[in-house]
Amino acid sequence: MEAQVAHAIAQITKGMGECIGLDTLQHLVERFYHTQERFIIKAGFDPTAPDLHLGHAVLLEKLATLQKHGGFVKFLIGDFTARIGDPSGKSETRKPLSEEEVQENAKTYAKQVFKVLDPTLTEVCFNSTWLNALGSAGMLTLASKFSVARMLERDDFEKRYQNNQSISLVEFLYPLLQGYDSVALACDLELGGNDQKFNLMVGRFLQRAYGLDKEQSVLTMPLLEGLDGVQKMSKSLGNYIAITEEPASMYAKLLSISDTLMWRYYELLSTKTPDQIAQLQEAVRTSKAHPKAVKEELALEITTRWHSEQQAQSAKIEFDKIFSQKQAPSQMPEWHFESGAWIASVLKECQLCPSSSQARRDIAGGGVRLNHEVLKDDRYQFSKGSYIVQVGKRKFALVHIH
Amino acid sequence: MEAQVAHAIAQITKGMGECIGLDTLQHLVERFYHTQERFIIKAGFDPTAPDLHLGHAVLLEKLATLQKHGGFVKFLIGDFTARIGDPSGKSETRKPLSEEEVQENAKTYAKQVFKVLDPTLTEVCFNSTWLNALGSAGMLTLASKFSVARMLERDDFEKRYQNNQSISLVEFLYPLLQGYDSVALACDLELGGNDQKFNLMVGRFLQRAYGLDKEQSVLTMPLLEGLDGVQKMSKSLGNYIAITEEPASMYAKLLSISDTLMWRYYELLSTKTPDQIAQLQEAVRTSKAHPKAVKEELALEITTRWHSEQQAQSAKIEFDKIFSQKQAPSQMPEWHFESGAWIASVLKECQLCPSSSQARRDIAGGGVRLNHEVLKDDRYQFSKGSYIVQVGKRKFALVHIH
Repeated sequence: MEAQVAHAIAQITKGMGECIGLDTLQHLVERFYHTQERFIIKAGFDPTAPDLHLGHAVLLEKLATLQKHGGFVKFLIGDFTARIGDPSGKSETRKPLSEEEVQENAKTYAKQVFKVLDPTLTEVCFNSTWLNALGSAGMLTLASKFSVARMLERDDFEKRYQNNQSISLVEFLYPLLQGYDSVALACDLELGGNDQKFNLMVGRFLQRAYGLDKEQSVLTMPLLEGLDGVQKMSKSLGNYIAITEEPASMYAKLLSISDTLMWRYYELLSTKTPDQIAQLQEAVRTSKAHPKAVKEELALEITTRWHSEQQAQSAKIEFDKIFSQKQAPSQMPEWHFESGAWIASVLKECQLCPSSSQARRDIAGGGVRLNHEVLKDDRYQFSKGSYIVQVGKRKFALVHIH
Repeated sequence: MEAQVAHAIAQITKGMGECIGLDTLQHLVERFYHTQERFIIKAGFDPTAPDLHLGHAVLLEKLATLQKHGGFVKFLIGDFTARIGDPSGKSETRKPLSEEEVQENAKTYAKQVFKVLDPTLTEVCFNSTWLNALGSAGMLTLASKFSVARMLERDDFEKRYQNNQSISLVEFLYPLLQGYDSVALACDLELGGNDQKFNLMVGRFLQRAYGLDKEQSVLTMPLLEGLDGVQKMSKSLGNYIAITEEPASMYAKLLSISDTLMWRYYELLSTKTPDQIAQLQEAVRTSKAHPKAVKEELALEITTRWHSEQQAQSAKIEFDKIFSQKQAPSQMPEWHFESGAWIASVLKECQLCPSSSQARRDIAGGGVRLNHEVLKDDRYQFSKGSYIVQVGKRKFALVHIH
């Protein structure tokens, strides 16, 4: 039993940023192993953006791990503010969502997350349920629980206040609303990104302020770096892998990450234990394993996780057929373009041709190959996927189209 | 017509602290004199304390003046927050008021204010009507209209923030709620004490922020000094004259104020025009009028205002009988006590007797007089009113019992 709990805690804390109330969490896991009684985990998601990528998967994997060790997940869709839109009316892009749109987005979420979460241990909740019921009087009560100075301690607020950048009063209310969700859910644990720590702690504080006989533990996870290994993974930066991405594309993108970033992905996305990861690192360090093989293992695991083992294996076979069995160099410069990019522009941008007019002449002369096939159409536009682009005998580039 | 408007503006601005949007207000008065169309004035009152004193009368008199020159008064009872009580639950003294208590207090207000306000030009409103309807979503919209930095500019907030004294977030919402009242009432003018200027300006700002095609003018009035001439009039300081106070007591207290304070009361409470007041001042300066006579005129006017001319005249006659026709000195030290004060303690406190035991001996010896009548009862307790207390032939004090 003790070993089980120790293993559980090792898996739960793997890769985490910080855990406040870890003792309490450990007791809850112990209680589960003794009595099968589950503890409640809250994880909030934005209903305006149901397209999840592997950055979100870090949290989802942690939730799945917690479900194995006693957690019951309240998958909280923060529809209350989304239903309002941008209350200042300044942003046209933050239009209020209708009840139907919220329900539609919730379904989209469910389709994605139940690939890793256990649906029998997950309840989808909407915070409009209790936040609308608060009413104006309840909002005053909520606001009375927290001080201005304490809210200004939040890093971003403090910086903006010092720099005379405007902070709308409504922004001071959002953390309280999010915190009140923890009161309404009476949860034992809340998960979020490292950047959410302040808000998560507000929930812990408010549970006490509203007289609950517990306060939630808080577990934060680092933000996953995107394919570039520098910036956090985000749709707007284009450095992401969507969890609904085709197996072939997912596998190819995972193989494109650097050897350093690979360990980060192992830590945050793989279900391997810290010990197993350490063994792999040791094997690479002592040259008993080739980094590319270790990366293939990661790419297979993650692609299997979000699709199936069969689809992952097919993706690997296809990838190997294109990239490995022909005579492309094992290291090529890599480039990223948007879907629809024109072949001549790409050839120029990738420095395979000095100009787009020269590129068109090269295509006409039969000197340009895509994935080892000669390309004759000089109006060709790329669609999504990864391509080996070759000009002449020796010039190669690996082109990823998003 | 122009003279009428000029006279109206002189009366409206008489004694005021500040007027923001005076031009607009002047146009509204002009419009009234041309078309009889009235403008809407908002004046907020706290429903937890319906006992009004002459400090409140400063605003009531100004409202009455405005009614004469085109104003329609929305007499706003701020019951919304009173219905909530202290949302932090820290203060036992701020218990929520019930619907019935609010209605009862509103009736008490009405009984008092319609002595000066024209009931046909007054509507009693309750802000819970629209503030409850706002709901939690409406509260967010409201909070989105105002910035943290701007709220921290309010003097008292700024000081408390600088001094690390806690400000609850709910305190940042109160000015917005009060301001939203101006949106809901679509008022043209709001009246308040000088200390309310910030909150009144929030209302003016919010009317624009909510897309109204006007913004209220703001007229502030100074806080009336109490009987002591130093502190602002307040119930807790005991330096007040309630507007429900008995005519005799009201008249006597008014006569007890200093010659300097008398002019302040003329400015803020009398219906005399600035010119008429200037003439009285000139008369006193040139000794054509005795200050006491001018003060009697003020006391008569105000007592008449809140009671009737007959009652005011009776009060004067009674006062004169007691104070003027007997041989008390025209200047006596004045003291204030609570109702129920024991005669021996009072004699000691007023330094008419060296100790309370000596005081009892003096009473037994027939040497103590109240309002010129010998007092024989050494257990005597004062009830409300003003008294000349005399010990022996030469020791006098004027005692006010509240």
